[in-house]
Amino acid sequence: MSTATGHTSAIRATKVIGTDVYNAGGDKIGKIEDVVLDKTSNNIMFAVVGFGGFLGMNEKYHPLPWSTLDFVPDRGGYVVGFTKEQLEAAPSDGIDQLTKGDGMGYRDRVYDYYDAPRYWQ
Amino acid sequence: MSTATGHTSAIRATKVIGTDVYNAGGDKIGKIEDVVLDKTSNNIMFAVVGFGGFLGMNEKYHPLPWSTLDFVPDRGGYVVGFTKEQLEAAPSDGIDQLTKGDGMGYRDRVYDYYDAPRYWQ
Repeated sequence: MSTATGHTSAIRATKVIGTDVYNAGGDKIGKIEDVVLDKTSNNIMFAVVGFGGFLGMNEKYHPLPWSTLDFVPDRGGYVVGFTKEQLEAAPSDGIDQLTKGDGMGYRDRVYDYYDAPRYWQ
Repeated sequence: MSTATGHTSAIRATKVIGTDVYNAGGDKIGKIEDVVLDKTSNNIMFAVVGFGGFLGMNEKYHPLPWSTLDFVPDRGGYVVGFTKEQLEAAPSDGIDQLTKGDGMGYRDRVYDYYDAPRYWQ
């Protein structure tokens, strides 16, 4: 998974899905539920992180730009550089809602929210 | 899944995996076993299609560039524009071998073999 070598760092989707995700403070915030693919452009649109009902309501699914997820081998999971408060206030929805309208609504919102570099023009 | 509109055509990896794949002649050749992601460039490196032992040996896994797979709703699966003979002669290996060396070995071989446009420079 190293990216320091400039290599491509191939990873199978079935190994990504189910992996734990931690916030900047080291707290486990949930796990990767799915990866949304952008068929037209050959890109990874976003990862879907399930936050296990920490809002005290039904589980919400947070789209996160793939580039915001850093795999940390010692942790055995992905770490994102955001606080719990930032993540709680982030766009989220039911999992089936995230890909409505070809996914562009949530794609645009979350790349802006997390200030992630866009892969599209 | 339409790409005619210029939309992004978002699709979840968990829905791609397990979908049947048909060749140019309409024969079912296998199903999608996994999708290999290119962590560094945010691209889809290739799909992994499991060919259920049609060589009379252990099942082999064929990497196919994502762009070669067209989803056909009436068929309920992906159709590739290759003959059975082309597919049988294509690069394949055990699934764990496909991502060795950051996946670049098989990536380069199959984009060349299927004459698919490269997403990298």
